[in-house]
Amino acid sequence: MILIVTPNPAVDVTYRVARQHVGTTQRVLDLARRPGGKGLNVGRVLDAVGIPSRAVLPLGAAPGRWIADGLDALGLTHVDIAVTGETRTTVTVVDDVEHPTMFGEPGPEVTTDEWVAVTDVIGQQLDGDVEFLVVSGSLPHRADPGVVADWVAAARMRGVPSLVDCPGGALLAAADAGATICKPNRDELLEATGADDERSGALQLLDRGAGAVVVSRGAAGLAAHTRTGVTEVRAVPGVSGNPTGAGDAATAGLLAALLRGSSDGPTSPTTTAPSTPGVDHAALRSAAAFGAAAVLRPVAGEVDVDAVRRFLADDDGARSGTRPSDPTWSHA
Amino acid sequence: MILIVTPNPAVDVTYRVARQHVGTTQRVLDLARRPGGKGLNVGRVLDAVGIPSRAVLPLGAAPGRWIADGLDALGLTHVDIAVTGETRTTVTVVDDVEHPTMFGEPGPEVTTDEWVAVTDVIGQQLDGDVEFLVVSGSLPHRADPGVVADWVAAARMRGVPSLVDCPGGALLAAADAGATICKPNRDELLEATGADDERSGALQLLDRGAGAVVVSRGAAGLAAHTRTGVTEVRAVPGVSGNPTGAGDAATAGLLAALLRGSSDGPTSPTTTAPSTPGVDHAALRSAAAFGAAAVLRPVAGEVDVDAVRRFLADDDGARSGTRPSDPTWSHA
Repeated sequence: MILIVTPNPAVDVTYRVARQHVGTTQRVLDLARRPGGKGLNVGRVLDAVGIPSRAVLPLGAAPGRWIADGLDALGLTHVDIAVTGETRTTVTVVDDVEHPTMFGEPGPEVTTDEWVAVTDVIGQQLDGDVEFLVVSGSLPHRADPGVVADWVAAARMRGVPSLVDCPGGALLAAADAGATICKPNRDELLEATGADDERSGALQLLDRGAGAVVVSRGAAGLAAHTRTGVTEVRAVPGVSGNPTGAGDAATAGLLAALLRGSSDGPTSPTTTAPSTPGVDHAALRSAAAFGAAAVLRPVAGEVDVDAVRRFLADDDGARSGTRPSDPTWSHA
Repeated sequence: MILIVTPNPAVDVTYRVARQHVGTTQRVLDLARRPGGKGLNVGRVLDAVGIPSRAVLPLGAAPGRWIADGLDALGLTHVDIAVTGETRTTVTVVDDVEHPTMFGEPGPEVTTDEWVAVTDVIGQQLDGDVEFLVVSGSLPHRADPGVVADWVAAARMRGVPSLVDCPGGALLAAADAGATICKPNRDELLEATGADDERSGALQLLDRGAGAVVVSRGAAGLAAHTRTGVTEVRAVPGVSGNPTGAGDAATAGLLAALLRGSSDGPTSPTTTAPSTPGVDHAALRSAAAFGAAAVLRPVAGEVDVDAVRRFLADDDGARSGTRPSDPTWSHA
């Protein structure tokens, strides 16, 4: 079972309007409300391919209750920690013309005692049958990034590998604590490390203690960085749609491959972090296939499962030499 | 006690952002969430000047529970009718540059049985110590405007005067049922009646059976229409701020004056509807003063009570001849 911590879950609201226009009153023509947060997206995608996971969530007030009810309706297992602050809502406004507009609440102020309760729950869960700890998404307003380090350390102590996809200080804290895999997108990596280029940013995280750094590059694919080099895969070509949640689906695809123990020859020596599963081409291709299959779905947290299989099959063809000159297909 | 029906209450959310911009992700810097709906605004203003009221609300799902809790926190008396649909949310986005942008959900589909339950509750309440029935705000998506007629008729049967401030078909239905006062704003009046000018629109409602038609004209003041003529007052001059909820405060001011039975000589004969309180200059001036006092407050449903007194005092000065040439200060 994969334990997925979503430190700052959200009620994700999508409003469809005739035409977005600042300064006017617009009737909401169509409305969708879903349990949101990157970790929940990862869990929903894993569920779609039959991989069991358990969500750990601090939830507060009416929106928190709504998320708990929503996860029950989706049939997802979750362990809630009650907090006094109000769980955030994100509102995304869409029409058929403009790019979506997103309004993100900062999230509740979670007290130290409440974080301790979250950490206790994670520890209890890790004493069970957890194969991987995932921490995904931002921390709430004014939270101490150190909590993520505590969770990673709790997993390490028990020999459970961890994947952290958090922005800013939480990403650095996770690396310091020896996270097995740090998985930021490129912008998050550069922002968190202050580096000018992806490789040096990744090396910073590796020097801090991360076992591997997997960077999602959106339409430019993914890369796995270790001290010894970089393994890259291109994104599945010719896929367009809704990129929201594609990075979370890629995380699910990466985990699916790592759990299968799939390997076409690890490119990363595992001396730096003994518990590091080799993030190889197969794992990255799985991540890319899941990410692309999410782009085909209008809703974050969903993938077109048939598309995943199709994309992986295409890739196998590609790897046998049909795209020899693909510049993003290079070994370190 | 004033019984106030809000057929389509809302969770009113206000997001402050650095700068509104379509197609971007914007962090919410400041967030306010309030129980909303025109009827609730009227009740809060009445409460501010010590006039007891009771809210009747169909409430559904998590947002409905949130509104009930919010009214308890405000110390407002409310009678809730549980509905299965989800009570709507309105999101207003503000910054220091652009006009506010408002996104309004249509509201839940309330079933016939649920409307029957609402009507039963109103009837039970009207058997008590109700001095005025107020129905204010839009109806939910696809609701039959006839329900408003039922409520007005239930009040009439018991000799309780009614004031209806609803748009569209509900306004016409209220007039058909003999509402004591129909109080649309000018745009709502023209839209509901299809009339080209305010007077003919008002006459339509009077012909249908309304006792009087009070039209709020925003910065241009208010007018009370009866068959025999029009009584007008100008808005309090030199007041600027947030007009949201000013019309609801004006309704509260009108009710406050009518309950005081204040009168400087009714301009409207009450032959058409025996229970019609005379909507005279004093009543309209009270409405204008409350409306202006609401503009001074950043939040709908609040008034600056001292400003109300000040504006009324100024008006008394004005009436003794200091503004003899005021064009909007005319008798029919």
